[in-house]
Amino acid sequence: MQQGRKLYEGKAKIVYELTGSSDILVEYKDSLTAFNAQKKGSFAGKGRINCQLTSWVFEHLEKNSIKTHLVSQQDDHHLVVRKVDIIPLEVVVRNILAGSTAKKLGIEEGFQLPHTLVEFYYKDDALGDPFVSDEQILVMGWADQATLNVLKQKALQINTALQKLMLDAGFSLVDFKVEFGKDSRGEILLADEISPDCCRLWDIKTKEKFDKDRFRRDLGNVEEAYLEVLNRVAKVLGKK
Amino acid sequence: MQQGRKLYEGKAKIVYELTGSSDILVEYKDSLTAFNAQKKGSFAGKGRINCQLTSWVFEHLEKNSIKTHLVSQQDDHHLVVRKVDIIPLEVVVRNILAGSTAKKLGIEEGFQLPHTLVEFYYKDDALGDPFVSDEQILVMGWADQATLNVLKQKALQINTALQKLMLDAGFSLVDFKVEFGKDSRGEILLADEISPDCCRLWDIKTKEKFDKDRFRRDLGNVEEAYLEVLNRVAKVLGKK
Repeated sequence: MQQGRKLYEGKAKIVYELTGSSDILVEYKDSLTAFNAQKKGSFAGKGRINCQLTSWVFEHLEKNSIKTHLVSQQDDHHLVVRKVDIIPLEVVVRNILAGSTAKKLGIEEGFQLPHTLVEFYYKDDALGDPFVSDEQILVMGWADQATLNVLKQKALQINTALQKLMLDAGFSLVDFKVEFGKDSRGEILLADEISPDCCRLWDIKTKEKFDKDRFRRDLGNVEEAYLEVLNRVAKVLGKK
Repeated sequence: MQQGRKLYEGKAKIVYELTGSSDILVEYKDSLTAFNAQKKGSFAGKGRINCQLTSWVFEHLEKNSIKTHLVSQQDDHHLVVRKVDIIPLEVVVRNILAGSTAKKLGIEEGFQLPHTLVEFYYKDDALGDPFVSDEQILVMGWADQATLNVLKQKALQINTALQKLMLDAGFSLVDFKVEFGKDSRGEILLADEISPDCCRLWDIKTKEKFDKDRFRRDLGNVEEAYLEVLNRVAKVLGKK
């Protein structure tokens, strides 16, 4: 299959048509952004790590009955995926409170939630992806109740499988962000990516951070942390 | 009954014990604050207007089967109310989008919502009263599901009665904020106040603002607007 016309370029990925196919091609870039792209960086190999991790994790989730948009990995930096209409909501799952939400609620980072929390953020860069309630989503028509129910159920299913995978790799899954899309038949599939860009991963013993907070908070060793996540997950999944 | 020890002083009200009574006394101050008290002002008569309006409106809501903490009006600036444990949530009801929420959702002020929206904000000045979802409230233990259901139902009941009252007074009820408390028997009562400090009221014909936005946005004629609300509501309720 041939890479066709560029459809969209985001902060960390570029999406292309695939000539002669209804699928699309996603290219993972080496760039790294935070705080709605106000902070920018990059490192060689970042695109490859996130591409590989997303491919492995999505394949693993499929084995756990969670449908994703992944078709196949084309090479180091490219995934072939099914074309979906992205639902304009970032779905955030929290097991432990951290980051801006801990601050907003006046709770110390590291607070173990009594049960898992699912949150929605309206995907709009110009608005800074605001946190929204179910009722706001419904009244604005961004999704209907049935869709919200499916998103919550799938988010919790993903959490169960991902928490187990990461625990086996020696990480505590603090929180993560996922996105979903509807395919041509209206089926809701996990889309976008799962990587240290959108998961908070703390070493189970040392509590050291192995995620984008190393970049956000200038903690250093960003590349080493991403690579460590890739290597540990590879080992658990029996890759390489 | 005698004014006793000062229990609490807020931005717009002071609460006192009442000697020989289980009720408490609320004094309405002339001060006016906005943006979490970053902007401050006052005008003579403001306390009297809000005290009188709250008294009349609460009495009117009681006639519409909505229980409030109001016992009686003592004088121009003082209400006797039942002592309640305030539930730490600001309950906001929106019929038309305006202010910071319109901005947050990327919608022009004045957008008529297809149905009424109820929102919760966690009452904490130090945190800036953050907008919170039902799930966040439940997981943090700030209220239980049964309480949230009662708050939503009561908020909508209040909206129906208040919308009618304000329409009769020539105002469109854009949005409002209320607070609730639990009395010693666990019953949930409407507490705090209802005034132009916490309602957005637009003239039904001219769309002119008759609420705290005149102060927030330096539109002038703040005192005249508050007084006009008092006088129009008085007329509808057959007062004076």
